[in-house]
Amino acid sequence: MPTDFSNNIKIVLVGTTHPGNIGATARAMKTMGLRQLVLVNPKIYPDADATARASGADDILAEAIIHQSFTEAITDCHFVFGTSTRERSIPWPLFTPSQSAEKIAELVDKDSMVAIVFGRESSGLANEELELCNAMIQIHTDPDFSSLNIASAVQIISYEIREKLLQVVPANEESSAGTPLASVDQIQQLYEHLQQCLVDIDYFDPDKPRRLMRRLKRVINRSQIDINEYNIVRGILSAAQKAADKKKD
Amino acid sequence: MPTDFSNNIKIVLVGTTHPGNIGATARAMKTMGLRQLVLVNPKIYPDADATARASGADDILAEAIIHQSFTEAITDCHFVFGTSTRERSIPWPLFTPSQSAEKIAELVDKDSMVAIVFGRESSGLANEELELCNAMIQIHTDPDFSSLNIASAVQIISYEIREKLLQVVPANEESSAGTPLASVDQIQQLYEHLQQCLVDIDYFDPDKPRRLMRRLKRVINRSQIDINEYNIVRGILSAAQKAADKKKD
Repeated sequence: MPTDFSNNIKIVLVGTTHPGNIGATARAMKTMGLRQLVLVNPKIYPDADATARASGADDILAEAIIHQSFTEAITDCHFVFGTSTRERSIPWPLFTPSQSAEKIAELVDKDSMVAIVFGRESSGLANEELELCNAMIQIHTDPDFSSLNIASAVQIISYEIREKLLQVVPANEESSAGTPLASVDQIQQLYEHLQQCLVDIDYFDPDKPRRLMRRLKRVINRSQIDINEYNIVRGILSAAQKAADKKKD
Repeated sequence: MPTDFSNNIKIVLVGTTHPGNIGATARAMKTMGLRQLVLVNPKIYPDADATARASGADDILAEAIIHQSFTEAITDCHFVFGTSTRERSIPWPLFTPSQSAEKIAELVDKDSMVAIVFGRESSGLANEELELCNAMIQIHTDPDFSSLNIASAVQIISYEIREKLLQVVPANEESSAGTPLASVDQIQQLYEHLQQCLVDIDYFDPDKPRRLMRRLKRVINRSQIDINEYNIVRGILSAAQKAADKKKD
């Protein structure tokens, strides 16, 4: 377990409205030893409120990276956690903060890059953003008042990460053998390849998409394929396309 | 275990300087189902900043009790936790937030009244206040930056209390989606179908199996597909076979 787990974990804030929350997030992260803050389309930033609420974590703000698109922000990541306080009907794998920290410990052990993504204060993450997440962290709040501040959510999850990752656990055989996971970028290419293949074998009509691709993405997301497996699946898709193609010649 | 543990737990803020922190504390408490806020000699209160940061937890502020002395504030309590992010040399029993939540679960179970006390932003609790505490909760922060916001400390401890006292188990994928997983038998059929399909599309030679099928089985296993997803994947395999087959006709 690397003691400096901060190299492998980034906190991504998407479309944050209040700059004070960005500052408070930086402070929350730094107290727990996290350093990589990524901002996607913040409404107002930089801002004096952000600096004031960072309260000594200005270095985290100064090093923060700003992106215009969410996809860009996570392109180098191997595993992406979304966060939510609501029960969502979409069946993503759900983790408690504590379970997510265990998962993150495994991922960091394999030197994977992990993103933990926090949506807009009012509306959370959009569906197309959720689809890029491998799993959701759900913080259980009082059902009558689930209005958890975004920096407080960051604080809870960062706290759990610190608790779990500093308990030094020997790397187990499986994980130390670990082949790196396919990156988000590769998974994106896999989706596109899969869709084209399904068209080529006459299984899928892109004009009547229904929910097919979303369902398949979910299956792929859950399986967390590594780079070798990624190459095998790409090879299978190409073989199916070739077989279908020859037929049409 | 009473489900409404909030009757037995109070959060006591001593000498708080910034009214915004009082509001943020009210919000943090309410998200986790705590309701009893006690203020000892707040510097500035009530204040618009407190109300703004409470963000819907104004009822907690409205019901908050203000005392002039710390002793008064805890006079009806059976067990008093102080809080700190620093190692203190004073020989108080030290609890992590998680351990304190277990202790609090026991105390609430006996219908004892518990206070959790947070000191001044700058200087914490004074020695004569510490002496009235039965134990300390210590939140482990990065040794280089232990400046945990007071409402964030309340959030972490309230979160641990909620987790332990409600023994929250996450709704997992299956139960939220409600679709049963594919059976072992079905997965076995899927393996066989996949293997035949890979032969049909000329990807796989069963005489030179290497480790291909074992690897693919591992991927499928990890993804834990449900019955709907199983049917989709079987459909895709059949379409690929059909496409390859027509070619051979």
